[in-house]
Amino acid sequence: MSGAPYIVGVDIGGTKVACVLADEQGNILARHWQPTRAQEGWQAVVQQLFEMAEQVMGDVPRQRVRGIGISCGGPLDSQKGIVYSPPNLPGWDAVPIKRIFEERFGLPTRLENDANATALAEHRFGAGRGTRNMAFMTWGTGIGGGLILDGRLYRGTNDLAGEIGHTTILLGGPLCGCGKHGCLEALASGPAIARRARELAQSAPESAVWQMAEPDTVTAQHIVDAAVAGDTFARFVLAEAGTYMGIGIANVAQVLNPERVVLGTIAVKAGELVLEPLRHALKVHAWSRVREVLEVVPAQLGDRAQDLAAVCLWLAD
Amino acid sequence: MSGAPYIVGVDIGGTKVACVLADEQGNILARHWQPTRAQEGWQAVVQQLFEMAEQVMGDVPRQRVRGIGISCGGPLDSQKGIVYSPPNLPGWDAVPIKRIFEERFGLPTRLENDANATALAEHRFGAGRGTRNMAFMTWGTGIGGGLILDGRLYRGTNDLAGEIGHTTILLGGPLCGCGKHGCLEALASGPAIARRARELAQSAPESAVWQMAEPDTVTAQHIVDAAVAGDTFARFVLAEAGTYMGIGIANVAQVLNPERVVLGTIAVKAGELVLEPLRHALKVHAWSRVREVLEVVPAQLGDRAQDLAAVCLWLAD
Repeated sequence: MSGAPYIVGVDIGGTKVACVLADEQGNILARHWQPTRAQEGWQAVVQQLFEMAEQVMGDVPRQRVRGIGISCGGPLDSQKGIVYSPPNLPGWDAVPIKRIFEERFGLPTRLENDANATALAEHRFGAGRGTRNMAFMTWGTGIGGGLILDGRLYRGTNDLAGEIGHTTILLGGPLCGCGKHGCLEALASGPAIARRARELAQSAPESAVWQMAEPDTVTAQHIVDAAVAGDTFARFVLAEAGTYMGIGIANVAQVLNPERVVLGTIAVKAGELVLEPLRHALKVHAWSRVREVLEVVPAQLGDRAQDLAAVCLWLAD
Repeated sequence: MSGAPYIVGVDIGGTKVACVLADEQGNILARHWQPTRAQEGWQAVVQQLFEMAEQVMGDVPRQRVRGIGISCGGPLDSQKGIVYSPPNLPGWDAVPIKRIFEERFGLPTRLENDANATALAEHRFGAGRGTRNMAFMTWGTGIGGGLILDGRLYRGTNDLAGEIGHTTILLGGPLCGCGKHGCLEALASGPAIARRARELAQSAPESAVWQMAEPDTVTAQHIVDAAVAGDTFARFVLAEAGTYMGIGIANVAQVLNPERVVLGTIAVKAGELVLEPLRHALKVHAWSRVREVLEVVPAQLGDRAQDLAAVCLWLAD
């Protein structure tokens, strides 16, 4: 290990791709990113990644690089290192990304889905430090999750553990992007918040939200901005989303009895505006003995999370 | 290990207590049971257990006994070996059962909640054999659970993992014994099935159920018996319970991505009458990629489960 102190981290997203070089303490020594050439197909994206990986490694001898970690949206097979068809990467269909990187660079390569990799990063460097049982939940365009149980990443049987956003919270509830009804994601994600504001627009024509956007173009960011500035309607809409999130977390807490739940973007941006109703819902839907060991906190790594996520795949367990 | 091939298993229930002597293959060599003298307080029950433990050990030298395993309802602290106040054991309040047994017999003693211990038994000897990720769910008076994840028992932060019966399935649903509303247990347990039959009695005065019992005295057993004999009303009530169970299992499957869910008593007795609607609900509420690795099956050990549960605490991991 001491002979190979460097790690290459690769983050494959639908809008941007990034490569970093890190040391074994997780310090980022070099970083490159580009908009994803997603429309040109997977070969073009892989070509981008190859070039950026070369750039971040610079003149570091290959034998001093421990390995390459790749973080990517699912579905994927972490063991075989194959990316199936992530919704944000059109044309990717069973791309054997691990083998492709291993052949190109001669370096051992690991693949993990982005929510799991970010869970590892928050566990090691962020809001999950020091915990044994932790759930990380992305909270933005989608609601995904990564689970650290008994101190280790739990992936499930075919890399689908942690899909908390697609548990059913409201029977007969709104249609989710996944095709089910009443999923947590359909009730509390960024697009769900925007949809709800749109649905309720007539009830609050005076809201500051409508000075920022039309019902057709409103986003969760507008709602959060208006809520932070004190708008009552925006706060109402966020409170509803926070309540559903609290119910979803309560159900996870009753099953996993974690000591911490770490929440992504919307919790970071809206803070107590969503966390207060969330904690109240948790009080109604989770046992006091479960709650007494549980903290629900916003994520801490912010933009660093993406960089550290892929790197964490090669840090000692 | 080979010098101590015997294990003593102790099962503490609200209606009966039992002790067994087993070998390291899990063969039961001796067994005693008695009705629990629950009303006489915990000291009386411990006295019962001491006597039965002496009886099952007979003239086996103490140094040939590897340890004592105790299976008991929660809440409890498995690490400290303390039983708090199980609803079915009045007057038990922080009883240090592990220390009490260790002092009495000079043998190392382990304590585990009964759902977890039964999960270990079904995993090793029953319907969960050969799986890496499995959820066991009791399905009778209550709905409890035990989780085997990555091949090992997962207990959670304070021994409360697996409380699947107390996840919220129906917002604003019926009051549960635990004080929450809309819990799976309040919708699908034995008492919930009986309550539902009572609620709907007027809709089916012709049902065979009412030849077996009055609305006030009907139990889930009557419903299962009538359903097995072909009664339409009883089948309708069971199907509803099975549907809720399917939703609860779907939510667990989206979070844990297990390869098998093993279901207790009601699934064993009612079979396809509950499993068919259950699987249909699973299809509606869980992703196909999650379902394609998942089997939902009845438990296999029946009455042997209780005996093996406590013994499993001392079988090699």
